[in-house]
Amino acid sequence: MMRTHYCGAVNRDHLQQTVTLSGWAHRRRDHGGVIFIDLRDREGLVQVVCNPDKVDTFAIAEKIRNEFVLKVTGRVNPRPEGTVNPNLPTGEIEVIADSIEILNASLTPPFQLDDENLSENVRLTHRYLDLRRPVMQENMKLRYRVSKTLRDYLDQHGFMEIETPMLTRSTPEGARDYLVPSRVHPGQFFALPQSPQLFKQLLMVAGFDRYFQITKCFRDEDLRADRQPEFTQVDIETSFMSENEIMDIVETMIRGMFKTVMNVDLPNPFPRMPYAEAMGRYGSDKPDMRVTLELTELSDVMKSVEFKVFRAAADMEGGRVAALKVPGGGTLSRKEIDDYTAFVGIYGAKGLAYIKVNEVAKGRDGLQSPIVKNLDDTALKAIIERTGATDGDLIFFGADKAKVVNEALGALRAKVGHERGLAESGWRPLWVVDFPMFERDEENNRWAALHHPFTAPADGHEDLLQSDPGKALSKAYDMVLNGWEVGGGSVRIHRQEVQSKVFQALNISAEEAQEKFGFLLDALQFGAPPHGGLAFGLDRLVTLMAGAESIRDVIAFPKTQRAACLMTQAPNTVDEKQLRELHIRLRQQVQTQVDVAKN
Amino acid sequence: MMRTHYCGAVNRDHLQQTVTLSGWAHRRRDHGGVIFIDLRDREGLVQVVCNPDKVDTFAIAEKIRNEFVLKVTGRVNPRPEGTVNPNLPTGEIEVIADSIEILNASLTPPFQLDDENLSENVRLTHRYLDLRRPVMQENMKLRYRVSKTLRDYLDQHGFMEIETPMLTRSTPEGARDYLVPSRVHPGQFFALPQSPQLFKQLLMVAGFDRYFQITKCFRDEDLRADRQPEFTQVDIETSFMSENEIMDIVETMIRGMFKTVMNVDLPNPFPRMPYAEAMGRYGSDKPDMRVTLELTELSDVMKSVEFKVFRAAADMEGGRVAALKVPGGGTLSRKEIDDYTAFVGIYGAKGLAYIKVNEVAKGRDGLQSPIVKNLDDTALKAIIERTGATDGDLIFFGADKAKVVNEALGALRAKVGHERGLAESGWRPLWVVDFPMFERDEENNRWAALHHPFTAPADGHEDLLQSDPGKALSKAYDMVLNGWEVGGGSVRIHRQEVQSKVFQALNISAEEAQEKFGFLLDALQFGAPPHGGLAFGLDRLVTLMAGAESIRDVIAFPKTQRAACLMTQAPNTVDEKQLRELHIRLRQQVQTQVDVAKN
Repeated sequence: MMRTHYCGAVNRDHLQQTVTLSGWAHRRRDHGGVIFIDLRDREGLVQVVCNPDKVDTFAIAEKIRNEFVLKVTGRVNPRPEGTVNPNLPTGEIEVIADSIEILNASLTPPFQLDDENLSENVRLTHRYLDLRRPVMQENMKLRYRVSKTLRDYLDQHGFMEIETPMLTRSTPEGARDYLVPSRVHPGQFFALPQSPQLFKQLLMVAGFDRYFQITKCFRDEDLRADRQPEFTQVDIETSFMSENEIMDIVETMIRGMFKTVMNVDLPNPFPRMPYAEAMGRYGSDKPDMRVTLELTELSDVMKSVEFKVFRAAADMEGGRVAALKVPGGGTLSRKEIDDYTAFVGIYGAKGLAYIKVNEVAKGRDGLQSPIVKNLDDTALKAIIERTGATDGDLIFFGADKAKVVNEALGALRAKVGHERGLAESGWRPLWVVDFPMFERDEENNRWAALHHPFTAPADGHEDLLQSDPGKALSKAYDMVLNGWEVGGGSVRIHRQEVQSKVFQALNISAEEAQEKFGFLLDALQFGAPPHGGLAFGLDRLVTLMAGAESIRDVIAFPKTQRAACLMTQAPNTVDEKQLRELHIRLRQQVQTQVDVAKN
Repeated sequence: MMRTHYCGAVNRDHLQQTVTLSGWAHRRRDHGGVIFIDLRDREGLVQVVCNPDKVDTFAIAEKIRNEFVLKVTGRVNPRPEGTVNPNLPTGEIEVIADSIEILNASLTPPFQLDDENLSENVRLTHRYLDLRRPVMQENMKLRYRVSKTLRDYLDQHGFMEIETPMLTRSTPEGARDYLVPSRVHPGQFFALPQSPQLFKQLLMVAGFDRYFQITKCFRDEDLRADRQPEFTQVDIETSFMSENEIMDIVETMIRGMFKTVMNVDLPNPFPRMPYAEAMGRYGSDKPDMRVTLELTELSDVMKSVEFKVFRAAADMEGGRVAALKVPGGGTLSRKEIDDYTAFVGIYGAKGLAYIKVNEVAKGRDGLQSPIVKNLDDTALKAIIERTGATDGDLIFFGADKAKVVNEALGALRAKVGHERGLAESGWRPLWVVDFPMFERDEENNRWAALHHPFTAPADGHEDLLQSDPGKALSKAYDMVLNGWEVGGGSVRIHRQEVQSKVFQALNISAEEAQEKFGFLLDALQFGAPPHGGLAFGLDRLVTLMAGAESIRDVIAFPKTQRAACLMTQAPNTVDEKQLRELHIRLRQQVQTQVDVAKN
């Protein structure tokens, strides 16, 4: 037997017992002729003491270097007075080595495990060493705890996990598919699923009633900090439940999970906010509710002002003028304001007008800003009154298409809030509800589904699908936590005639719909129950809970932002024979590049 | 609220209560002016009664056809005397409908849900209807129960689930990979994993100590009845445990799972049998232990007989002569023997010699067979004594390369055993151990890994890797249940120098090894712990437990044997634009075919 206890679990209860431990030499110190080894396993560290009078054992101990794998048998002793380490669960004891076996040697690792400034490239190349670091061990444990706790809850509530296919049909809707050439069917391809959406709806048609799955999904998108080519979704669907019932059951799940895993009490119930209100007050459909700042609507006031930038935005169809008051923002330097101006530029804002409120009582004269002269007294009064600005505050302005204003001021709100201490700590979940069915796809001059084309319209909004699609609300809901969308879903369309109306509104012809989603449309005709559900992004949720900087820190073997695995060197080139079997070839130009690279 | 109870859960406890139920109209009967509807949900059926005095409700009930989705509110009444159905959990009650709402209509299904002779093509095309059938509902529930029970056990024993990548590196070892072209890296490909083998070993190097994962694996092989392009593996790995400890812990898991899920007591402990013994006695490394037949070794006896077929096989290096006694087989007809002869032909046997034992006491004269005249008395005596044949038995013979004899007689043993009632019922698990490290790859005249090249040699067999590879045994083990290999694994090599020796024996050069498995070889140098594990094939295990005919019956959305999904029509052709983005094109010939098919 290679061990009787985990290293990190030995304590006063084991005093005077003989234990056998296996693990890694975390550190070796020689002190006063005695060798001390911190032996590490996944449960923690314990101090092993090798005395020189144990000649053979001592000789072995002298050979030990960092990260050697050892089996140690010895007696658990109390640490001598003055050497107790209260920061370590095993800090009251030490193990006096009777015998040590080197189970495996180790080269000197390419980096120190306790180095806090490691380059991510080095970490990802030697991921098996990076994962030894306690923070990564904890992240993976947390991730497991979260998924296990969710699974247990769903089990207790009658949900059953059902696996859906990984090799499925390409549907050129949404993001780019990852394709898999078929050997058996020349010229044809499977696609890796972007989500199990259609399959889970079919499982409801099949009568499974309550389904879940924790599964990989794939999107071949341009990567951003919080995206991976493959990601994990907690996918849930139920039949015969309203949107409120669905929200209740998953809200309870998340609240219970936070309590179980982190001992955190989330509010009960989570607040709910219509999409329109979220956009109005926060410029975002996933507002960070910790931030105490809010936008102020000014579009109506600015319709008649002299300042062209504001007036044009206020008069424009779909335009917006809004303010963001920053309490105490009067101390912002020119440089800081310039940086914020550059920041909102990322979101398409052409500038960032502001007013410093020096002294409210002085009226126009108490306001400091290049734009004040272009605003009449009514407008200035409205700005001060509506924002509730007082001496020492600063007010930022956004004026453009609503989309630009919302994205720019929404992002600025979060940034300023966190940078200037205008945010609370803790966990602030929120349901955003009453989403529109459609958003305008300006580029293609058509309506696009805001969620996906299977989302049910709100009760009474069915007729709007044709008469005024922009006004139609849906039965969709997003769970937002501290500014991250952690989950989203909807009640689905369960009647074929409603589904057809939505496809019509989306300008998808009957033929096209049949070609892409024929099996779902067929299924809806054979007794589809009312159903709905949602999906959580597990990677994001755990990243948030872990306080990690990147979702890569909660994934055991992630890809880089260039969609590559530095450890295995995937993707890689393959044999011509493999391609031939799959009935494909590289495009000429690429072929040449690959050949050159090989030589 | 769409329901207060599941249909299948209403019983005497709810008498006189008003309940709301939602489900499918399983059957509608009109009887004496009253309409009876069997309302079905995933928990079962309940009888709904619509009386004509409820005029509006009755009018709705008249519209109802099979598979309509209904919401019914009514009072639970005892069934009238004489109409109680003791076969139904809800058979003592009925629900007197107060109101009925048609939540969704249904076209007439393309098949009757209770039809027992459905073509699999029809079932797979309309899988969402096929899955409504109670047998399929039960199969999916069983599958979920199995995976949940395994997850719970592993959790309680300190294993944590860690997800490994789906998009990984192609390793041209073992079966054919499914490839995924990379958009970001022109000319390069990901592969879908054939198993998480290398990643789980790396997780052990990373110190996670106990890992598991229930995950999809992919093999682009020619499909057989029990294979799917994607299949689900229960993958387990642990550090610092011997093969016996690993076998114990997973054996306990499987025993507990059978008890929990099926209330079946498996033997404790499972018997263990060396590979050589299994091949000798059963001609198989996954013998069905329910079958009471055994092979009898005759190679030594046949070295000197006149009968050339036997003598040649006995004298051949790697040849074997063996017998299979069939008690009572004397009644087998010529036709039956011919059929068995054709059957062993599938396995390469060139014939199927036999002796009918009419009267042992008569010696040679009591034996009936064309081959008796070619066998001397010593040989005949040995055959009778060793097989223990008595009057009325029949003895089959195999004589060829051992591989052919074993496969032919091993398969014949199982077939004859089950067909002639020479098999016990119940569950007969077995561990097969002491596998050889290598098997001879005659085609390429080299040694091939019997399990995989990361399997550790048995203690003391390290030197044999070079000196006599064919004699080296491994630390591999397979769990066999009723003739199916349900799980297999091994202790892995954790030291780089042993891994190198194995690669050498397999004739894999250092460069090739580095190219293919460099990251694993690197990892072994940085303090890899002793580790091992195994993997269960979940599809097979559940198929066996369900008594299903095919693994397709325990997979929600399986592929056909032609690796296609009849429901979604995957794989399918994709846009040229998609291929261009992936830097690939179809091979010329295929391109032409696809174009023709489109027009």
